[in-house]
Amino acid sequence: MTAGRYTYLGPEGTFTEAALRTLPEAATRELVPMVSVPAAMDAVRNGEAGGALVPIENSVEGGVTATVDELASGEPLLIYREVLLPIAFALLVRPGTELEAIKTVTGHPVAQPQVRRWLERNLPEAQWESAASNADGARLVQEGRYDAAFAGEFAAATYGLEPLVTDIHDAQHAVTRFVLVGRPSRPASPTGADKTSVALWLRSDRPGALLEILQEFAACGVNLMRIESRPTGEGIGRYCFQIDCEGHLADRRVGEALMGLHRLCSEVRFLGSYPRADGVRPALEPGTTDGDFVAAAQWVHRSLDGQPDGARPPR
Amino acid sequence: MTAGRYTYLGPEGTFTEAALRTLPEAATRELVPMVSVPAAMDAVRNGEAGGALVPIENSVEGGVTATVDELASGEPLLIYREVLLPIAFALLVRPGTELEAIKTVTGHPVAQPQVRRWLERNLPEAQWESAASNADGARLVQEGRYDAAFAGEFAAATYGLEPLVTDIHDAQHAVTRFVLVGRPSRPASPTGADKTSVALWLRSDRPGALLEILQEFAACGVNLMRIESRPTGEGIGRYCFQIDCEGHLADRRVGEALMGLHRLCSEVRFLGSYPRADGVRPALEPGTTDGDFVAAAQWVHRSLDGQPDGARPPR
Amino acid sequence: MTAGRYTYLGPEGTFTEAALRTLPEAATRELVPMVSVPAAMDAVRNGEAGGALVPIENSVEGGVTATVDELASGEPLLIYREVLLPIAFALLVRPGTELEAIKTVTGHPVAQPQVRRWLERNLPEAQWESAASNADGARLVQEGRYDAAFAGEFAAATYGLEPLVTDIHDAQHAVTRFVLVGRPSRPASPTGADKTSVALWLRSDRPGALLEILQEFAACGVNLMRIESRPTGEGIGRYCFQIDCEGHLADRRVGEALMGLHRLCSEVRFLGSYPRADGVRPALEPGTTDGDFVAAAQWVHRSLDGQPDGARPPR
Amino acid sequence: MTAGRYTYLGPEGTFTEAALRTLPEAATRELVPMVSVPAAMDAVRNGEAGGALVPIENSVEGGVTATVDELASGEPLLIYREVLLPIAFALLVRPGTELEAIKTVTGHPVAQPQVRRWLERNLPEAQWESAASNADGARLVQEGRYDAAFAGEFAAATYGLEPLVTDIHDAQHAVTRFVLVGRPSRPASPTGADKTSVALWLRSDRPGALLEILQEFAACGVNLMRIESRPTGEGIGRYCFQIDCEGHLADRRVGEALMGLHRLCSEVRFLGSYPRADGVRPALEPGTTDGDFVAAAQWVHRSLDGQPDGARPPR
Repeated sequence: MTAGRYTYLGPEGTFTEAALRTLPEAATRELVPMVSVPAAMDAVRNGEAGGALVPIENSVEGGVTATVDELASGEPLLIYREVLLPIAFALLVRPGTELEAIKTVTGHPVAQPQVRRWLERNLPEAQWESAASNADGARLVQEGRYDAAFAGEFAAATYGLEPLVTDIHDAQHAVTRFVLVGRPSRPASPTGADKTSVALWLRSDRPGALLEILQEFAACGVNLMRIESRPTGEGIGRYCFQIDCEGHLADRRVGEALMGLHRLCSEVRFLGSYPRADGVRPALEPGTTDGDFVAAAQWVHRSLDGQPDGARPPR
Repeated sequence: MTAGRYTYLGPEGTFTEAALRTLPEAATRELVPMVSVPAAMDAVRNGEAGGALVPIENSVEGGVTATVDELASGEPLLIYREVLLPIAFALLVRPGTELEAIKTVTGHPVAQPQVRRWLERNLPEAQWESAASNADGARLVQEGRYDAAFAGEFAAATYGLEPLVTDIHDAQHAVTRFVLVGRPSRPASPTGADKTSVALWLRSDRPGALLEILQEFAACGVNLMRIESRPTGEGIGRYCFQIDCEGHLADRRVGEALMGLHRLCSEVRFLGSYPRADGVRPALEPGTTDGDFVAAAQWVHRSLDGQPDGARPPR
Repeated sequence: MTAGRYTYLGPEGTFTEAALRTLPEAATRELVPMVSVPAAMDAVRNGEAGGALVPIENSVEGGVTATVDELASGEPLLIYREVLLPIAFALLVRPGTELEAIKTVTGHPVAQPQVRRWLERNLPEAQWESAASNADGARLVQEGRYDAAFAGEFAAATYGLEPLVTDIHDAQHAVTRFVLVGRPSRPASPTGADKTSVALWLRSDRPGALLEILQEFAACGVNLMRIESRPTGEGIGRYCFQIDCEGHLADRRVGEALMGLHRLCSEVRFLGSYPRADGVRPALEPGTTDGDFVAAAQWVHRSLDGQPDGARPPR
Repeated sequence: MTAGRYTYLGPEGTFTEAALRTLPEAATRELVPMVSVPAAMDAVRNGEAGGALVPIENSVEGGVTATVDELASGEPLLIYREVLLPIAFALLVRPGTELEAIKTVTGHPVAQPQVRRWLERNLPEAQWESAASNADGARLVQEGRYDAAFAGEFAAATYGLEPLVTDIHDAQHAVTRFVLVGRPSRPASPTGADKTSVALWLRSDRPGALLEILQEFAACGVNLMRIESRPTGEGIGRYCFQIDCEGHLADRRVGEALMGLHRLCSEVRFLGSYPRADGVRPALEPGTTDGDFVAAAQWVHRSLDGQPDGARPPR
């Protein structure tokens, strides 16, 4: 039963697995670690899995750009859910290892900036070497190649290690955002606290193109939550943008803004409308409710029908 | 038969009458001069006339602001036609009067700047006094009160005068624009070379309100042809704007822009979609054809239906 | 002594004279009525007068567009002062005339809409005829040509009439704005509650040109107070814009915005920075004080000098 | 001699080293590989090296976000040079290995998408495992742990391997951009084909903040070449933007735009003005040359001095 299987960016013991396990339905699914973000998403495309959980923002595992690029350029998948996971590292060691005995540490390269200040203060002499993932670093400690690895505390059990120090993070509020993607289907109904994601390619690289896109959102009263540029692979200076905005495609203001994008862009790809993990409802500006859009459309139709507002029949 | 009657800004012999007579149907209508623009338009509102021709732009008769204000704030009427009339004055005198005998000249106050340089060159000693209209000035010459009047050449016969000098105008290409208004009804079908007029009141006097309006037009690729501000009568600094733009309300880009105005403004009034007198067809920007708007709407609907572009069914 | 003479839009007894008399220095000046706005301003240009007071906005005398056009296109003059005058009409009659005896009324054409509703309610049978000015109407009543004239109450004495009814006005808060113009000289020092006026000609009639102008003001945090379009006389569809904005040219945000206009426009004319008649001080947006502009310029200069913020010398 | 030493993102044999060797002065410098981008840049900050070459855009080594974040948030360094390097991979094997014998391949995770299609076509059965860098992958092949590694062809000699297949890349025109950073100092003089980089933090996350930034560039006629958003580490939804634009800080239009950013942003950091690697000179829009900016400033100053354009002394 492929719908009963969820893939995720592995190996076991990564933050991605921890994020996936926060979803209630994960308890009844087979959870399969994959070697890379593309592999996790391809399993869904090929029908071998019903969904894939992958990091998309502020990752400590390095999966972000792969996710963004796969969503934009790979065979279409939609986002159905997002998960926010606070990020804190544990220093994992073989049982019995003491802090002063640590000469070498490892972890994913993008974890390094997050633990750098901690290292300077607590292990200034220890030598850092990069691993392919945080979990892989834990495995290499298990194998005795390094003395300690930075990883999620939850990874300790998987690799027979113990967390010597926990809750290590340089930035306050370090959070990684993950998305659950699936094959294209009808988006979930609006909840009132939704988010919509799109990928878009500007018609040309004239200076005003991105500006026009942002004006389209502003004109419809739709707040942007994330904007990320990615090279298109067609040479330096050609970008694809990925944008998250407040609201659901079924909200008139979002639908209207996205129609504008469709006209302005050389290509635009809908990536999903889904509930916000933080549950925050947007504060709507005057003139941007569904009722305002409907009233505006009705006014145009009445005017076309020869019945503008305020007119009265001749005496 | 009131539909068979057209009113216009009188008295007889004004440029407005001349403009009205350029319309083919004027030949079969009863043409009735009225004392003022509001009076001409009220006759239509009350069913006493089928239409009214009034000057709206660059007038030499002083009717412009009255027209603009009546369209914006009076009981609703729609514009169905526009007429462009080149403006040139004749110097009208009682038969036999010679140039050197002219000591006093008259005309409407707004005519004065148009003939000022001519006066300085040709009648530097003559004294100017204002009349209530150009035609009224002609009447006062007829009565012997002044020696000469500036008016349209066509006014000479009406008042028993003769044109001593013709084709007087300071500005090259001086043209006045007139509109034919009628009671609200279905606008004429789009011709491909149309114009749409609206009056609008900004939601508040915050700095960006007018900017947002203009951005709405720009976002839909709709060119503005006229923008005029008028005090609302609610105190200095409160304005109503009257805007003419390229295109017909039935054009998707115009309908879309006007819907945006309806949402952004505290009030907006549709004043008509009608053929352009100059017959110029707009050059459409990429992404602003009716087809582009339809394609954008269909894309949004497909996405809501779970069928985004480029997706294929799972294997 | 020409500097001791002020001209104004006459004849005597108009609202313009009343406005002029609100200025303290008027008491020590010779006040000379002129036949037209251009005549009043030409007297200043030619050195025959030190200043001219003319209506510029919401006038009940019809001088507005003449003033706007003269400021934009005539030989340059600057605005040094503005006067706001509440507008209310009196119904002037020959002494002894009673309301029910009034069959004909007169006044300037632009006064008519302001008294129209009053007429409908109180003199529904009276016939309206236009006069060249409100004061001229009073004169015609004096001569017995009409029964009553609408004019300022102050005009009664000049023409030997009496005010039968006073405080007539359809719009609440009807106010006319007048400006005192003089030959170009250094503007008065900023008071903190100032206004700046400019006339500008767009580089071409492309749709975005006016939009760019407004964005320039918005980018500098400068609020617009008036925007008025005027045909340039080069044919329908070519406009000159006249803009009043908050602040003094010596304020950095205003200077910066006007520099932008100079670059964007085919022509821009400075029309003066002068104290606001209402004394209102603008609420500045963050980042738009003089200090913010100076700090920004200093930062750029430090960066060019190789001393960006936050750098420290190498160890 | 620290100025004689350049660090770079190691290990030896990466694309970064290849990029560094394209600089003429590299021939006379000591080139030192560092374990990470922060380490390479810290060596410059601490005075141990005169410059550091690090990848910043479209990298196949994973250094991009580290570079962007270090430039934005680390102790200030400036960009003095950029290098563009076409990216193509070689499949490196121990001498004598044949294609059909390859069961396991390795490389940096971000290299995988670039070689994915090639793998599917040529080695569909081979198993991929990630390495910490492309060069590290080569080392692991040397040690016999994997059969083949994707890396730059130039890495073969360093690790005693041979390139079995060369010029492997999925995207046409795959190019990585590297920057040479140094301690803050005066930027090189403008060449006419320059680029300027800044990092900025929006004043708040209101919808229009980024829009205002882009409008500032547009208003000054400055084209954007790259815009990249990075989380600030203060929680999801808070971004820092890094922008490259055409032109040199000493160009008036660029200086003006950056002054606007300084006013609009809560923080802005100048990251350098340096010659474009592609040597392309920007096409300037009307009104944006240095001369236009100077003329605008002079006009404002003349107006403040009471000498507006077009005025003549009174007769």
